[in-house]
Amino acid sequence: MTTRIAILGYGNLGRGVELAIKKNSDMELVAIFTRREPSALKINSNAKVVKVDEIESWKDKIDVLIICGGSATDLPVQTPKYAKMFNVIDSFDTHAKIPEHFKNVDESALAFNKTAIISVGWDPGMFSLNRLYANAILPDGKDYTFWGKGVSQGHSDAIRRIEGVKDAKQYTIPIEEALQAVRDGKNPELSTRQKHKRECFVVLKEGADSLKIEQEIKSMPNYFIDYDTTVHFISQEELNEKHSGIPHGGFVLRCGETSNNTKHLIEYSLKLDSNPEFTSSVLVAYARAAHKLNLEGQYGCKTVFDIAPAYLSAKTNEELRASML
Amino acid sequence: MTTRIAILGYGNLGRGVELAIKKNSDMELVAIFTRREPSALKINSNAKVVKVDEIESWKDKIDVLIICGGSATDLPVQTPKYAKMFNVIDSFDTHAKIPEHFKNVDESALAFNKTAIISVGWDPGMFSLNRLYANAILPDGKDYTFWGKGVSQGHSDAIRRIEGVKDAKQYTIPIEEALQAVRDGKNPELSTRQKHKRECFVVLKEGADSLKIEQEIKSMPNYFIDYDTTVHFISQEELNEKHSGIPHGGFVLRCGETSNNTKHLIEYSLKLDSNPEFTSSVLVAYARAAHKLNLEGQYGCKTVFDIAPAYLSAKTNEELRASML
Repeated sequence: MTTRIAILGYGNLGRGVELAIKKNSDMELVAIFTRREPSALKINSNAKVVKVDEIESWKDKIDVLIICGGSATDLPVQTPKYAKMFNVIDSFDTHAKIPEHFKNVDESALAFNKTAIISVGWDPGMFSLNRLYANAILPDGKDYTFWGKGVSQGHSDAIRRIEGVKDAKQYTIPIEEALQAVRDGKNPELSTRQKHKRECFVVLKEGADSLKIEQEIKSMPNYFIDYDTTVHFISQEELNEKHSGIPHGGFVLRCGETSNNTKHLIEYSLKLDSNPEFTSSVLVAYARAAHKLNLEGQYGCKTVFDIAPAYLSAKTNEELRASML
Repeated sequence: MTTRIAILGYGNLGRGVELAIKKNSDMELVAIFTRREPSALKINSNAKVVKVDEIESWKDKIDVLIICGGSATDLPVQTPKYAKMFNVIDSFDTHAKIPEHFKNVDESALAFNKTAIISVGWDPGMFSLNRLYANAILPDGKDYTFWGKGVSQGHSDAIRRIEGVKDAKQYTIPIEEALQAVRDGKNPELSTRQKHKRECFVVLKEGADSLKIEQEIKSMPNYFIDYDTTVHFISQEELNEKHSGIPHGGFVLRCGETSNNTKHLIEYSLKLDSNPEFTSSVLVAYARAAHKLNLEGQYGCKTVFDIAPAYLSAKTNEELRASML
C-alpha cells in the first residue's frame, strides 16, 4: 500500500518531512501547500508546490496531510480546520492546551470520517510513550525527564530580542551528576537548577555592553534566572561555523520498586543531530498509522497513546512477529 | 474497574505476579492454580490456592489468567488450552516458535471469545516494542541488542550439568567498548564475541578437577565457545552470599540517518534487580489490557505490537493526555 502525503508549511519541519518520506518506499510526497508564492519555494523533491488557498481541491488526491505549523498560533486553527478535509498529523506541543486542542480536532475529524493524530514528535511523542509504558509497568516509582544537550529555539530567540545582541544560540544541558543519581536508584528530589544548565553563545552588535547583556540574560525571568547560565561572546563567523546545527535529545527515566528494596530502572534516550528531521521522521511513521486507521474506519482524534505500535510499521503483523518480537 | 487475576504456576514468575498485583490497586489476585498439593504451597497473599484440575470451575470468577510456566514444554500446551476458558497472558520466549504458538492460541481464543496476549515481558516484550518503534521512525539504520549484566538461567544450568560441579551461576555481560561504538554512531559490525562476555562462578564437588572443568565450560558449544569466558571457583557460602540474586537487563539501540550524515541514536535500557519480578510487572500491565480489550469485544491472540499503550494504564485516556503527554 502506498500512502500519499502532503505537507502544509515548508519550514524546518516541512523540509524534514520531505526528507523522511524519501526513506520510506511506501510513501509518496504529492504536494506541498504554502502561504508563500509557490514559485518562490525551492524544494528538494518532485512534489507539486501549491498555494494553500487551493488545498480543498486536493481532497481526494491525498491520504494524509502533515501539518508543519507552529503550536502558538498555526496549529490551533489549522488542525481542526483541515481535519474536515483530510486525515491529519500535527506536532502540537503546548502541553497545557492539549486537552482543548484534542477536543477541537476530534469534533472536526468525527464529523467528516477523518483520522487525526496530534502531538506527534519526541516530546510530546516518544517521550510521552515511554512515560506511559514505564508508569504502567512500575506503578510504585518516580519519573525523571532531562532535555539536551540541545538547542532551545525559544531561549535563543529570547536572547536575540535583547538590545545590543546581533545573534545568539542557547544550549540546554542536563546535569550529569543529577542523571547519575537517578541511574543509581537514589530517587533524588531535584530543583530546576539541579537538573539542567544553560550555555549561551552570543554575537554582539558593535558598541554593545557585554557585561550588561550578560547580566540581562542571566537574570531573565522564566528563561534563565532559575538556571546556572554561562554566556560566551563570539564572532558571527564562529557562531555560523560551530553552532549552526539544531541538535537535541534527552532522557526519560523511571526508577521503581516491585518489592522491598528490589529496584528497576527503565531509561529511554535520544541523541539527535537534527531536532526537526527526527520529529519529522516520527510524524511520517504516524502518517502511515493514520492512513491504516482511517481505512479501518477508526475516525476522530488520537494521540500516540491510542495507537498500537504495529500501525507505524510498513511490515505486516506476521512479518513483525517473525522478525522483531 | 477491578481486574480479577489468577496465576497458573507458582515459581519465580508466579511469585513475581503476586508481588506486582500488590502495587496495582485496581487488581485483585483471586486464585493460584498449582500442579502441586495446594496445602504444600506457602504463598504471600490471601489468594485461594487451588489444584489445577479444578481450574474450569473458576471460569466466571476470573478476568485474566496469567500463565507462569516455561516456554519449552508448559506454555505450548497450556496457553492454547486455557485460552478456551479465560483471557490469558503468557511470557512465551522461544523466538523461533512464536508464529506457531500465536496461531494455536489465536484459534482457541477466537473460538471462545477470549483475548490472549503472548510473549509478554522484556525480551520478547519491551525490547521488541522498542525495536519496532525505532525501526518505524528510522527506517535507514541499524539495530543492536545487548543483554546484561545479568544471570542467564540456561547457562548456569549448563554448567551445573557438568560432572564435578556442585553449583554455579553465570553472568552475561555486554562489552562496554562495543556499546560505546554504537552510541558513537559508528555502526560497527560486531561478532558474538565482540558483543558479550561470560563470567562464571562455580562451586566444585570434593575432589573435582578444576582445570578440566574450566576447560569443559570454555569449550562448550553454543553456550560458551564463541565467547570470552572467565571462570571463578568459589565456595558454596560465597555463592549463596554474593550471587543469590537474579538481576538482568540490557540495551536496545538503533542508529539511523535521516539525511546525509545527519544521525540519530535511540536507546532503551533496563537495569533490573530481579528479572522475574520485572517480567511479572509487565505481565500484570498487559493483563489489564487483556481485560479491557475483551470487554470491547477484541478477541483472539495479540502481542505487544497489537496493543495501544493506553490499554496498559489504570488511568483514563483524558487523564493520560492531561498528565503524561
